[in-house]
Amino acid sequence: MQVLEKLLDRIIQRVNINLRELGFDVAPYVRELIQRKQMFKFYAFYGITPHHPLNFQFTHSNLAGSYFLGSCRVTNSLLYKSDIRGDELKKKGTLFQFQDFEIPITRDEQIEIEDSFLIKTLVHNYSHDPETPEKFFIKDTISMHYANIHGSPSYGCFLGPFSTVDLTTMRDCVIGAFSYIQAGEISHIKIDPGTVWVRSPDKFNFLYRYEKNQLNKYIDFTPGNRPKGLLFDFVEDHKKEFERIFALVNIETPRSVPGSASLDRYAVIKPHTNISENVLVAQRAYLKNAWLGKGANAQENCYIINSRLEGYNVTAHGGKIIEADLGKKVFVGFNSFLRGSPDARLTIGKESIIMPHTIIDISDPLTIPPAHIIWGLVTNKKDLETNSMPISEFSKIETKFSLGNMIFEGSGASFISAFRHRIDHILEANGAFFNGAENKGHAQKNQSISFNTIQPYPMGELKGLYPSIIIQP
Amino acid sequence: MQVLEKLLDRIIQRVNINLRELGFDVAPYVRELIQRKQMFKFYAFYGITPHHPLNFQFTHSNLAGSYFLGSCRVTNSLLYKSDIRGDELKKKGTLFQFQDFEIPITRDEQIEIEDSFLIKTLVHNYSHDPETPEKFFIKDTISMHYANIHGSPSYGCFLGPFSTVDLTTMRDCVIGAFSYIQAGEISHIKIDPGTVWVRSPDKFNFLYRYEKNQLNKYIDFTPGNRPKGLLFDFVEDHKKEFERIFALVNIETPRSVPGSASLDRYAVIKPHTNISENVLVAQRAYLKNAWLGKGANAQENCYIINSRLEGYNVTAHGGKIIEADLGKKVFVGFNSFLRGSPDARLTIGKESIIMPHTIIDISDPLTIPPAHIIWGLVTNKKDLETNSMPISEFSKIETKFSLGNMIFEGSGASFISAFRHRIDHILEANGAFFNGAENKGHAQKNQSISFNTIQPYPMGELKGLYPSIIIQP
Repeated sequence: MQVLEKLLDRIIQRVNINLRELGFDVAPYVRELIQRKQMFKFYAFYGITPHHPLNFQFTHSNLAGSYFLGSCRVTNSLLYKSDIRGDELKKKGTLFQFQDFEIPITRDEQIEIEDSFLIKTLVHNYSHDPETPEKFFIKDTISMHYANIHGSPSYGCFLGPFSTVDLTTMRDCVIGAFSYIQAGEISHIKIDPGTVWVRSPDKFNFLYRYEKNQLNKYIDFTPGNRPKGLLFDFVEDHKKEFERIFALVNIETPRSVPGSASLDRYAVIKPHTNISENVLVAQRAYLKNAWLGKGANAQENCYIINSRLEGYNVTAHGGKIIEADLGKKVFVGFNSFLRGSPDARLTIGKESIIMPHTIIDISDPLTIPPAHIIWGLVTNKKDLETNSMPISEFSKIETKFSLGNMIFEGSGASFISAFRHRIDHILEANGAFFNGAENKGHAQKNQSISFNTIQPYPMGELKGLYPSIIIQP
Repeated sequence: MQVLEKLLDRIIQRVNINLRELGFDVAPYVRELIQRKQMFKFYAFYGITPHHPLNFQFTHSNLAGSYFLGSCRVTNSLLYKSDIRGDELKKKGTLFQFQDFEIPITRDEQIEIEDSFLIKTLVHNYSHDPETPEKFFIKDTISMHYANIHGSPSYGCFLGPFSTVDLTTMRDCVIGAFSYIQAGEISHIKIDPGTVWVRSPDKFNFLYRYEKNQLNKYIDFTPGNRPKGLLFDFVEDHKKEFERIFALVNIETPRSVPGSASLDRYAVIKPHTNISENVLVAQRAYLKNAWLGKGANAQENCYIINSRLEGYNVTAHGGKIIEADLGKKVFVGFNSFLRGSPDARLTIGKESIIMPHTIIDISDPLTIPPAHIIWGLVTNKKDLETNSMPISEFSKIETKFSLGNMIFEGSGASFISAFRHRIDHILEANGAFFNGAENKGHAQKNQSISFNTIQPYPMGELKGLYPSIIIQP
């Protein structure tokens, strides 16, 4: 057990050294967060398929409950129930277009995690940093429950629970709980909890901040305590239902799934769920009485409960949809929490964009018209006035605009077009547009994955540590 | 799938080249034996502990349902539900005593399986060959169901079902079904089915041969067919009961097991089973209403049903004991089949030696007095006259002796003493003599093993092949 203690101490020290300028001490946040016995209770697992790169190297780490796909190296790290999905990494011999640079990729990209501690974190996509196109690094980094590290190399950072860093290289930063950052490159800054920040230099800058007292109801993270609040309680309440899928070696497919769709065997599928063509359901997703139309997807840590999604819906990593009806091509961003109830259903019109880290939590029925963009906290119809706009209106913004707690600078059209482009790309990557022959994506390529399990030394000096494991084609 | 076909063709050709002088064609025996779909249905698994060497290298092979412990390398091979137990291999820096040679061991010994096809085969112990002390090789070899390759490097051989080669280096040999060979070194010979041969050059030579028509009732193996007969039916009849232990990730211990004993989680334990101190139950053992006294062991592929073993009993790999009462220190050799019934119990007095590959199959109650040695086929009291002797009498043989189908040459005392020595060594290695502090063996060291599972490519060109996997400390 001591070897894990030492590893944790070492990681904490490294992150603190990186964050010394911000005067941020990660120790009280993380030291007692995961009981050590949990760290050798759960097996880790990795996927083997002919459709993905295959290159795993695990050294001197604990990987309890974590999942790996594609190409990843993990060294001197603690990964607790995290998903490291290296299935969108760049391939050797391709060109990486960044602004005017055409960067030749000279070796297969790899996710390289070193001296880091990730808790229930999702790592996905590829390095969007032109300075490091072949290495998606996560070094001297600590991330908390349900953080998303999406296309974002990280060095010396602390990510709070339910935070997302998207397409952004970070150095020596603290990202507050439930903050969403998409800013290209950031360094030496501390982001307050509940910040939603989307920036494209010279093009636009979107900034929303949750009121602290309102945010605390949903997520509250203080030193020495586990995360608290509605969001955390919600996932904890469903934890038990995941036990069975990890306890059995083989899981029967609960219902017929079209040949063009894929349902991960590590997803929980409860009764009355409909899976249409080209649907992707990722591991650790939870579906209950969920109707997923053609090309819809439910990504890691999604919950779709008593809801209907008409088709081509993206429910990004950590999105939660409860008692809601979503029209075609509604996009639900990372970690959004949309909660209606049987007496107060939420209806969202087609082609609307729910910004990442949006909370819609209603007691009366609420309808959002088609083609709207929604952000921040919405608890009733009135809130929509300050937290949503028709996309067509938003596109008209040319220089500066503010509404409620949201500030926007730059071109609204450019912002919307970037979003639309991104949504189409996600649908494409997930295989939503597969026509039986072309446009294969994750939904088609993930259908048949073999899962291998790995476990740590059960006792002795190295208790809790995984042996060195190398898996290559 | 084609890649497995190619691999099998290649292995068959290699073995046939080795066996060309004997004019033996393995193809009709093995080509259709295992349906290809079975070869990607089952996961393989390996154990991680701090007490065993840890060095696994799997390359270009299918390992369906096989288990690995210790140090093994598998290349270009098909291993179907086999056990490769590298937990008794020699350690670097030790001395290997062989006759008058003291051989320094300069690197950790490894089991190296190459270009071979093993079906439900047990590989255990270490290379007893002084010419190759650090490499326990199995090359260009095909072995059938429930064969035991025990401390026996093999090159270019074919082993029939339920055959055992023990402490013997083989080159270019065919070992018939249910034959037991312990002969030091053999080459270019074809052993008929049902041969029990124990030879120590210049010391003794024991030879028994089953009558063909009698043996066929128990095991019959002809080209183009699966093995037939009572022995094969018996294990097939119990196959279903093993499914559950492979389907669950974690198995609860069915009852309290003393801290000094170990019960493998891949053993089947049915009700009314008692596990005393220092007991070892290996993977794929089957216990039902079995009373195991202190220091008893049940090795791989053992079945102990409605029986009582008083203590310090060795039930070697593949031994089967049904409706029997065994006194203290009764030794039951490899693949022996001892079958009483509720109305016709079998009683074996203490310190008796049941030679490997003995069949005792009775319809009336039968009692074997203490300190007897038993061999061959015994179906009633009369058969004991030609198939057993008091050990004290056997020890008096000085030059030559024969009884029934058994011929003995050399020193009976030396033969018995070699056996006794071996039994003590097995008990010691298995931890039967553990006193709470000293004399740890497998029973104590195997208590806490982590199991990792591995699977092949599920589809595509490499379907059925496992990726390259390297596991080291």
